[in-house]
Amino acid sequence: MPTAIYPGTFDPITYGHIDIAVRASKIFTKVVAVVATNPAKNPVFSMEERVVLAREALKDVPQITVVGYSGLIVNCVKEYGASAIIRGLRAMSDVDYEFQMAYTNRNMLTSAETVFLMPSAEYAYLNSTLVKQIARHGGDIGGFVPEFVKNKLLGKVVC
Amino acid sequence: MPTAIYPGTFDPITYGHIDIAVRASKIFTKVVAVVATNPAKNPVFSMEERVVLAREALKDVPQITVVGYSGLIVNCVKEYGASAIIRGLRAMSDVDYEFQMAYTNRNMLTSAETVFLMPSAEYAYLNSTLVKQIARHGGDIGGFVPEFVKNKLLGKVVC
Amino acid sequence: MPTAIYPGTFDPITYGHIDIAVRASKIFTKVVAVVATNPAKNPVFSMEERVVLAREALKDVPQITVVGYSGLIVNCVKEYGASAIIRGLRAMSDVDYEFQMAYTNRNMLTSAETVFLMPSAEYAYLNSTLVKQIARHGGDIGGFVPEFVKNKLLGKVVC
Amino acid sequence: MPTAIYPGTFDPITYGHIDIAVRASKIFTKVVAVVATNPAKNPVFSMEERVVLAREALKDVPQITVVGYSGLIVNCVKEYGASAIIRGLRAMSDVDYEFQMAYTNRNMLTSAETVFLMPSAEYAYLNSTLVKQIARHGGDIGGFVPEFVKNKLLGKVVC
Amino acid sequence: MPTAIYPGTFDPITYGHIDIAVRASKIFTKVVAVVATNPAKNPVFSMEERVVLAREALKDVPQITVVGYSGLIVNCVKEYGASAIIRGLRAMSDVDYEFQMAYTNRNMLTSAETVFLMPSAEYAYLNSTLVKQIARHGGDIGGFVPEFVKNKLLGKVVC
Amino acid sequence: MPTAIYPGTFDPITYGHIDIAVRASKIFTKVVAVVATNPAKNPVFSMEERVVLAREALKDVPQITVVGYSGLIVNCVKEYGASAIIRGLRAMSDVDYEFQMAYTNRNMLTSAETVFLMPSAEYAYLNSTLVKQIARHGGDIGGFVPEFVKNKLLGKVVC
Repeated sequence: MPTAIYPGTFDPITYGHIDIAVRASKIFTKVVAVVATNPAKNPVFSMEERVVLAREALKDVPQITVVGYSGLIVNCVKEYGASAIIRGLRAMSDVDYEFQMAYTNRNMLTSAETVFLMPSAEYAYLNSTLVKQIARHGGDIGGFVPEFVKNKLLGKVVC
Repeated sequence: MPTAIYPGTFDPITYGHIDIAVRASKIFTKVVAVVATNPAKNPVFSMEERVVLAREALKDVPQITVVGYSGLIVNCVKEYGASAIIRGLRAMSDVDYEFQMAYTNRNMLTSAETVFLMPSAEYAYLNSTLVKQIARHGGDIGGFVPEFVKNKLLGKVVC
Repeated sequence: MPTAIYPGTFDPITYGHIDIAVRASKIFTKVVAVVATNPAKNPVFSMEERVVLAREALKDVPQITVVGYSGLIVNCVKEYGASAIIRGLRAMSDVDYEFQMAYTNRNMLTSAETVFLMPSAEYAYLNSTLVKQIARHGGDIGGFVPEFVKNKLLGKVVC
Repeated sequence: MPTAIYPGTFDPITYGHIDIAVRASKIFTKVVAVVATNPAKNPVFSMEERVVLAREALKDVPQITVVGYSGLIVNCVKEYGASAIIRGLRAMSDVDYEFQMAYTNRNMLTSAETVFLMPSAEYAYLNSTLVKQIARHGGDIGGFVPEFVKNKLLGKVVC
Repeated sequence: MPTAIYPGTFDPITYGHIDIAVRASKIFTKVVAVVATNPAKNPVFSMEERVVLAREALKDVPQITVVGYSGLIVNCVKEYGASAIIRGLRAMSDVDYEFQMAYTNRNMLTSAETVFLMPSAEYAYLNSTLVKQIARHGGDIGGFVPEFVKNKLLGKVVC
Repeated sequence: MPTAIYPGTFDPITYGHIDIAVRASKIFTKVVAVVATNPAKNPVFSMEERVVLAREALKDVPQITVVGYSGLIVNCVKEYGASAIIRGLRAMSDVDYEFQMAYTNRNMLTSAETVFLMPSAEYAYLNSTLVKQIARHGGDIGGFVPEFVKNKLLGKVVC
């Protein structure tokens, strides 16, 4: 019964995240999308809000559940008995950062593998930070996030 | 009458920026160097100062004009009826960030293409952030920026 | 009257090449797609065949002409009075090779700039070599090349 | 009952390949290591020999089977009803080539995802081609391949 | 009597830094590990603490000395009459940043070369920032830093 | 008395190779430029010719000697008691290949470190293969190789 953890900041969830989660759900029996605290990134949405948005965005895929978690990912992996940590692998500079995290996680826990999935080409360069910048400047972000995320984000950044 | 937009933070303008702007002016009839606000980068110079320095640095090339702009680049592109967005492409990690921005811009506006130009090899690794760090430590930045930029920068960072 | 050269092996022309050529034609008044000999790549199609296929594929864009050329690209650039050399910039490993060629060309000719355009995301990883391998194994290449190119290619590789 | 295909040339199988196959077997119920023909690579070992060596190397992991295959990988994936194509992701230049193949495969078949696993750090730069070069020069390849592979390889290259 | 400078933030020193310093000491007669101020990185340890930890970690290699320095690295290089600046070269995104710094230093000082050494594969993705994040979450960092560094770091981040 | 080996195919020696060799000679007491056989690369010049050209090109630097060698580089390193293997590190795709070789060499020999030096920016993308292609097409290669190398190369490729 292979379970996979899909950790991220999801601030907010984009079509890129959804794409990866759905792909993972075709391989694994159960996928737990884990919304991490990540204070370093200084998120626009609180963890609770990010969980709510991710749940709404992924509600049509029954194998996927969404939880918030504020500790080490490897502990979360153990808690769920997962055998895989899912990461979307976009382009170049990404790879280095992803490998740093994955090797570090492997150093602490060998019972789960980091599994990299490739996003749909149209989302290969999609990035939450850029989406937020565009929203702040009043640009149209309808091509990057679902309607209800867009509305929440506009409510946040336009004040 | 092809017009190109050359957006950047230009904090301050370096020989690398000048090199790209001049190359662009050989291809396009009109090049508008757009000094963007970019609050995320927390610039040393105000937008007005950055515009003044860029204007001084590019004054010998009549096809180039310099303006300040504090909105989405795609809106600026529409305003000037530009068919191209110029970006200097330096080395490795650059490419990923540049592609993110360019695909995001293309998603919002299809009437202009991002056009990447290659800097002169001697400026391939030149970077405003490093120049400011060196100035702060009292190093000689004469090889990286024009004399009048150097003086302004020293006035800013040495206090 | 800015003219651009778009050189390549085009063995055979794919949707990726077409995408770049069309994007270039929106920026430049005239685009000359130059089918190069490139004996090192040991092409499946003769230069004449590659020119014919590229012409057919690009016939709907009046600013684009297709020619064959078997010398140094910089000489071809001079012959056409071009101010730009167009290259599609795909992903990672590409960049290094492209920069080598572009710096080498700049060393020999300074009157034209290499201009990198970004393909549509869906063609970002499309590659003539892979297309030919798939055709050889009887795979469906309809998503990669136009119908008439597909038929010609199948005629070549299935013997 | 998730099945994964692990395709490769395996000419010959190295500790790097074994490492990836074993990691895959911890995630998937069944892993089929597929020895591909790849005439382009001009292998030192025949397909039959490569299958025999891979079988010997992986015989202790019951979930892994080894087969030879000389067609399109996507057809092989369909034949085994696999939901994943395993690839080891090493370093930099690798990523581009791997993404080309993976996007090309996805274009032809959407029922399986390419799944990238990270090799053990000590095998991150291991490469069959280098191993064969070293063997040809009489170097010690005991750190790169199992004993019985080493002996077979020395028998091939030292003549 | 070739002397090399090995500059870094060392916040705190990891097995990766130690690995590079020891490799440098096999090539150069004298290696000076220079703990730089780097206010941009907002270090967890004061410069004095970082020097003490680095000294302890490298005390068994007599050719290595550890000093603190708060100016331009090129000035430090001149002060010690060094002919080389040592940098560990990890993976991908690193290279660009390292080349920026190295070309910038070369622009200011030509009497010393930046020399890149390759870390042991097991430390290729080790990173002080990740180590500090793990420590903050109560993870085990014993595989990344020596015992006494671990204790000091836990004292810092767990409050 | 630190000795360094600088291995390469040198087919033929370019300003890029000379630049790296001279930089190495400022750090190491003795630099041995080792012209390797490399049958895979199918050189234009015989090993004897490549040695003669490299000797001529480097004759003004007394610490540098040039030899031909047709075995494993690690054996050559042992023979000369070298503590370092010099490699010029150019751009992106290079790094992966270089790391593969360096880790492979380290696996076979731990008494010498691979030391990467950065070429002068103007030679960062210079490449013997491109130089030969240009010469074949009658292009001017005077910016890439010394006069006497140019003459020899033209004698080879123009027949």
